[in-house]
Amino acid sequence: MSKTRRLGRGVSLVGAGMSRFGMFDDRDSKDLFLEAFEEMRESVDKGLDPNDIDALYVGNFTNDLFVQQSHWGAILTDALGLIPKPATRTEGACASSALAFREGVFAIASGYYDMVLVGGFEEMSKRSTEEVAEGLALAASPYERSAGFTFPGVFGAMATAYFDRYGATREHLMNVTIKSHNNARSNPKAQHQRTIQQIMKSRIERATQKGDPAPTWETEKEFLADPRANPAIAWPMHLFDCSPISDGASCVLLVAEELAASFTDAPIHVRGLGQASGRALHAADDLTSFEATRAAAREAYQMAGVTPADIQLAEVHDCFTIAEIMHMEDLGFFEAGTGYKAVEEGLTKIDGSKPINSSGGLKCKGHPVGATGTAQMIEIWHQLRQTAQERQIPNQDLHLGMTQSIGGTGGTCAVTILERR
Amino acid sequence: MSKTRRLGRGVSLVGAGMSRFGMFDDRDSKDLFLEAFEEMRESVDKGLDPNDIDALYVGNFTNDLFVQQSHWGAILTDALGLIPKPATRTEGACASSALAFREGVFAIASGYYDMVLVGGFEEMSKRSTEEVAEGLALAASPYERSAGFTFPGVFGAMATAYFDRYGATREHLMNVTIKSHNNARSNPKAQHQRTIQQIMKSRIERATQKGDPAPTWETEKEFLADPRANPAIAWPMHLFDCSPISDGASCVLLVAEELAASFTDAPIHVRGLGQASGRALHAADDLTSFEATRAAAREAYQMAGVTPADIQLAEVHDCFTIAEIMHMEDLGFFEAGTGYKAVEEGLTKIDGSKPINSSGGLKCKGHPVGATGTAQMIEIWHQLRQTAQERQIPNQDLHLGMTQSIGGTGGTCAVTILERR
Repeated sequence: MSKTRRLGRGVSLVGAGMSRFGMFDDRDSKDLFLEAFEEMRESVDKGLDPNDIDALYVGNFTNDLFVQQSHWGAILTDALGLIPKPATRTEGACASSALAFREGVFAIASGYYDMVLVGGFEEMSKRSTEEVAEGLALAASPYERSAGFTFPGVFGAMATAYFDRYGATREHLMNVTIKSHNNARSNPKAQHQRTIQQIMKSRIERATQKGDPAPTWETEKEFLADPRANPAIAWPMHLFDCSPISDGASCVLLVAEELAASFTDAPIHVRGLGQASGRALHAADDLTSFEATRAAAREAYQMAGVTPADIQLAEVHDCFTIAEIMHMEDLGFFEAGTGYKAVEEGLTKIDGSKPINSSGGLKCKGHPVGATGTAQMIEIWHQLRQTAQERQIPNQDLHLGMTQSIGGTGGTCAVTILERR
Repeated sequence: MSKTRRLGRGVSLVGAGMSRFGMFDDRDSKDLFLEAFEEMRESVDKGLDPNDIDALYVGNFTNDLFVQQSHWGAILTDALGLIPKPATRTEGACASSALAFREGVFAIASGYYDMVLVGGFEEMSKRSTEEVAEGLALAASPYERSAGFTFPGVFGAMATAYFDRYGATREHLMNVTIKSHNNARSNPKAQHQRTIQQIMKSRIERATQKGDPAPTWETEKEFLADPRANPAIAWPMHLFDCSPISDGASCVLLVAEELAASFTDAPIHVRGLGQASGRALHAADDLTSFEATRAAAREAYQMAGVTPADIQLAEVHDCFTIAEIMHMEDLGFFEAGTGYKAVEEGLTKIDGSKPINSSGGLKCKGHPVGATGTAQMIEIWHQLRQTAQERQIPNQDLHLGMTQSIGGTGGTCAVTILERR
């Protein structure tokens, strides 16, 4: 049994904000981060003087390449009018802002700072799809890249292995897609806010208006099974299995737990943390599970003194539909090889026994990679505070939620357990 | 007066190692980091089991661009055989590993981890000088870049402003160059291990051997004043005012202070920390001083409860000779506008009253940018432990040293005060 981790000082979330996620021709990283910051500021129930922020941690993955600008900690600090506050960028591929969050927690728990802003951002849509695919693949291992893999290919290979071992099919993945779209429908920040039903109907209407032969889809699954509507990207990953290319930013405000009551009567506390590294796919023992997720989850559960059954909701890193299923299993919510059945039975819906990705997940909320980790926490923040509006999980006793972020092909995983007392 | 920062738990260095710094066709980032790690491991007086390392923090600036690979935390963890230990990359331009060091300190001081490896690395020499200049300039502001600035230009402009205000000349900068080369001569890890005298003599010999007219330089300054020997890069920054393009890696092992005695009888303790952000050059009030350095130093002195006079030696971020002078002033070692006189008087030599960059500094030890922050700490580690061999500062009572790292055109600065008790 590994050592149980403890923080010498409790840390609490007292504010949270995110930009709209989407593809924006007219907004850059600074614009998006300022939008997130402004919402965070307004979210602090008893008010915030930004000058009280001691330090910033920001996660970003690809701006060096896609925006041709590095050193974003200092740039955003200046944009926020917070010079000379210190700022540090963290990078762990798509888990970058989950790592920023941890550093903010440690910096406060160490006693050094009392209030830290943590967040992330990414600006991807101004690049071509090919450039984005190749840029993101820099987080994979050189061996994977030289074999021709980009991320859809990696997760396609994992899905194939999972199908082979456990008997799942593409139809099971469609259940994840349909759920994600249903959840995102009522998330005003989501990139894709239409259900599969809505998308399907609008395509039929459009065809009819143009005088084309109207598609004959009667169900969501018929739509998703039609390669004209849902083409293969890297089999069995089709378009609607993949998270989109996104721009966006998110941030949360952390304070020492003993100070939280000065900012809100409903703080959210950090109950458990876990982070681990895993071998990349090319060297992994198993293509149907992420060793880093299992190790990070073990650490977080042990610190929190809870079990998977105690977690009432989770935002997991569904960069692809198959990833949602595998992460749920690695987090211990469902036995290995049964996650797809849990989705089929509706257990992971908002009104199910274990709601997963009530935000719409990376798939529909969007995946501006550096912004994703803290954006996941923002969904837990809203759900635990009962402020998730139409997508609120119907449980007045919500008090324990989890986020899980992965970087690369399993190289990095960070898990956080958040609590409302 | 700002708040005095405190750590809830002391943190100590018990191991330190670095690769040779230089330009290596046949070594990549992994090779260099493994070389640093191996020396660190051997440096732990009472032995180290690497499996006891709880986590890694690694600073890197340009590998996304220059090596076309991201997500180095996981890659290095795997290369070291330390999966599933967590790893986080920090980026703050040329201060990247100074930021990694801070995160390691916070993670231990928080109570979460007991032992953390922190380090940095960079692999630059496989790119052309033009590519390196343009890549590094991504840490400057877009306004500076669009005006045509790369780093030699930025520091050239600062030097010009300094000359104008304080009456310094190129000859004063030559004193910095000569001192750096003298110090690096006895640093076996340094990229440039020859003194200016030695370089000068070898050029004269070479000319004589070839039958060319032998140069008539009689002094080091005549050599440095000759544009054939020391061409202008961006006036008044000539070749010998600039740190080189380098490959290299460095790391130190941090443990909770109460555990340090299990590893060595001569631990080095973290006494003070400071980090700050500054506006980029294009928006700075003053071209002869870095606001981030002043703010970071203030914080570190306050935490440590010491004054500039108490610091017995320092490694400062001499990416260019003018930077060494300006940083010494910003750190409070000398009054503004007098740093160049202190160098002229020999105060900053190894046997002076305030030895600066006894390692040879970035100028001669080399500047693999991500490795520089922790490499500076390694010099302080050796000096305080009296293990700096031929370049040892002749003072048996050395107990307080400082490092100072800057990123970009002043966007980030981190200052660390290290102590031997």
